Amino acid sequence: MGRTSDGVIDWVGRLQRIRERAPGVVLVTSLPDIRWATGFSGSNGVLVLSDRAHLLTDGRYTEQASREVSACQVHITAGGLLRHAVGTLIPEGSTVTLQAEHVTLAQLEDLEEDAEGRDLVFHHQKDLVSPLRATKDSVELGAIESAQRLTESVFRTLPRLVREGMSESELAAEITCRHLSAGAQRMSFDPIVGFGENAALPHGRPGPRRLKAGDPILVDMGCFLDGYASDMTRMMVFGTPAQEFLDGFDLVLCALGQAADKAYAGMRACDLDAVARSVIEKGGMGPAFSHSLGHGVGLEIHEAPSVSFRSEAALPDGCVVTLEPGIYLEGQFGIRIEDIVVLRPGGCDLVTDVPRDLVRI
Amino acid sequence: MGRTSDGVIDWVGRLQRIRERAPGVVLVTSLPDIRWATGFSGSNGVLVLSDRAHLLTDGRYTEQASREVSACQVHITAGGLLRHAVGTLIPEGSTVTLQAEHVTLAQLEDLEEDAEGRDLVFHHQKDLVSPLRATKDSVELGAIESAQRLTESVFRTLPRLVREGMSESELAAEITCRHLSAGAQRMSFDPIVGFGENAALPHGRPGPRRLKAGDPILVDMGCFLDGYASDMTRMMVFGTPAQEFLDGFDLVLCALGQAADKAYAGMRACDLDAVARSVIEKGGMGPAFSHSLGHGVGLEIHEAPSVSFRSEAALPDGCVVTLEPGIYLEGQFGIRIEDIVVLRPGGCDLVTDVPRDLVRI
Repeated sequence: MGRTSDGVIDWVGRLQRIRERAPGVVLVTSLPDIRWATGFSGSNGVLVLSDRAHLLTDGRYTEQASREVSACQVHITAGGLLRHAVGTLIPEGSTVTLQAEHVTLAQLEDLEEDAEGRDLVFHHQKDLVSPLRATKDSVELGAIESAQRLTESVFRTLPRLVREGMSESELAAEITCRHLSAGAQRMSFDPIVGFGENAALPHGRPGPRRLKAGDPILVDMGCFLDGYASDMTRMMVFGTPAQEFLDGFDLVLCALGQAADKAYAGMRACDLDAVARSVIEKGGMGPAFSHSLGHGVGLEIHEAPSVSFRSEAALPDGCVVTLEPGIYLEGQFGIRIEDIVVLRPGGCDLVTDVPRDLVRI
Repeated sequence: MGRTSDGVIDWVGRLQRIRERAPGVVLVTSLPDIRWATGFSGSNGVLVLSDRAHLLTDGRYTEQASREVSACQVHITAGGLLRHAVGTLIPEGSTVTLQAEHVTLAQLEDLEEDAEGRDLVFHHQKDLVSPLRATKDSVELGAIESAQRLTESVFRTLPRLVREGMSESELAAEITCRHLSAGAQRMSFDPIVGFGENAALPHGRPGPRRLKAGDPILVDMGCFLDGYASDMTRMMVFGTPAQEFLDGFDLVLCALGQAADKAYAGMRACDLDAVARSVIEKGGMGPAFSHSLGHGVGLEIHEAPSVSFRSEAALPDGCVVTLEPGIYLEGQFGIRIEDIVVLRPGGCDLVTDVPRDLVRI
């Protein structure tokens, strides 16, 4: 299932599982999918699964590819990778499966031009690799946990940093600096920092707004470590907040607690979303919970499975998802609390290891 | 030409220039293209040019879109933007032009499904907006210069920061922190920091390699400010370097100087590349210059025009490009020096305002 019993990743097994999902030759062009399937972490690559597995990249990655990739033949090419793949690695007369979400119309046009006279048939398929990636093995879980521990260590330093008059941008810059100084490869997204009424913009950019007494502070942040992402949202408050905010906080806290208590592998995504949503609806704040409950986290900060009211798909065993209910009242305040969990048949394990409580400064 | 005489951007003119390049209704799906055409800087948007100009986005951006966008009707939609565009904004029987590089096979499949029964014909076109963006107006030039000034102010602090035993990752983290603290929105790419032999990896990731006496230091960095990017590479050396390095540095310096002296709007990209390349070839290092001379810089860190030996296109008046010759000797050292210039019919103006000299620490 993607790894052998001794904790080493079973790359051959991962490649085989992709092959089983599509007929003929498979062209994998999504870089996170290539990383999952081969270990290659460069910024330019194509994976061809034909008679055997071929990884194509360019001369910048010669040394890196030979170090990272064990189950594919590595090809270093000077020109376009797709052109090389079609011109030399795919047998004449093949049917070639492309990743529908990861090939543009321009790329298909070029491929068809390069394949002229070679009797290739291209077809495309959605969700070729993402469902395989949804279930995490223990190596992946360890990487996500390490990234999350790093983010939590940064979070614990924030109360001492926050001061009256500082801007959202300043706090966001410090959050990034502290992640990088602690060894993060990069942020998994630009930190979201919202003071007071700005926290009502679910994905607002930190701006010049300065902190003043009574302001709630929303902080949503994460980083990449060993290729895997962390993600966490917590609420702080500077001074004494309005009672409406405290009531809202308790409601969101309850929604998250209920969702974590009732989550298990095999339940439908929409049913898990509904657990949190019904708490917020009963509190009279239904319309203020304007997004879905969560999303998968792994080699990408947003990946399968979606924990959405729109998805009737069953959540797979071993998937890692965020649970992040929120309420947003324009012009007043916003509240979101976000944990990461691993779903198992009997329930879920928390990856996040920081109390959900409101941090009072 | 994209702005009126009083320095305000002529959004209506920009939209009109896109329309003139394609028949029928145009669907713009590249976010930097949308920003260039409308001013909208959110992370989710679609621009529809039909009877009039429509910008579609979601509820997170209601306030931002109304503030940023003046020449389009703004539509806030709850579901998929493309579905909404096809379902309600595009007249039946239309021909619809898509951006070939910015629409995936999955998106086209969904579009065709959504258009069922509405008699729409989709076709796609390459390079729909990028050539328009290549020529910068004075507002854009001002933004690039501001971003570049910020990067240069960070660069000037580096000699005091560099110390024996520090790692590439530590220096890279500091570079990011100093950019963000100085007000950059984000980095335009993860800083490239290479010590000694690691500088021979043209786009290597900073790692645990520690600085020791005699090491060359390659630093390539840039940020976004007001949406526009900066980009600069400089060489430093810690202690006394090998003579071969100093000889190589002089060669690359000469190649950049020649390229900047001879660059002008209207010349072919390959001819400008050849100016720098011939200097390096005459120095006997031709094969070590393993990439093209430069690339356009603007709302993206890499955009049109490419200054490549492969491109016979004329470089347009007012384009902003990097000139970044380099030589890379595996296991020994790498050298790259990079300026940004604006091309004019009579020559080029330097945007970069930091001496190209080797910085000795």
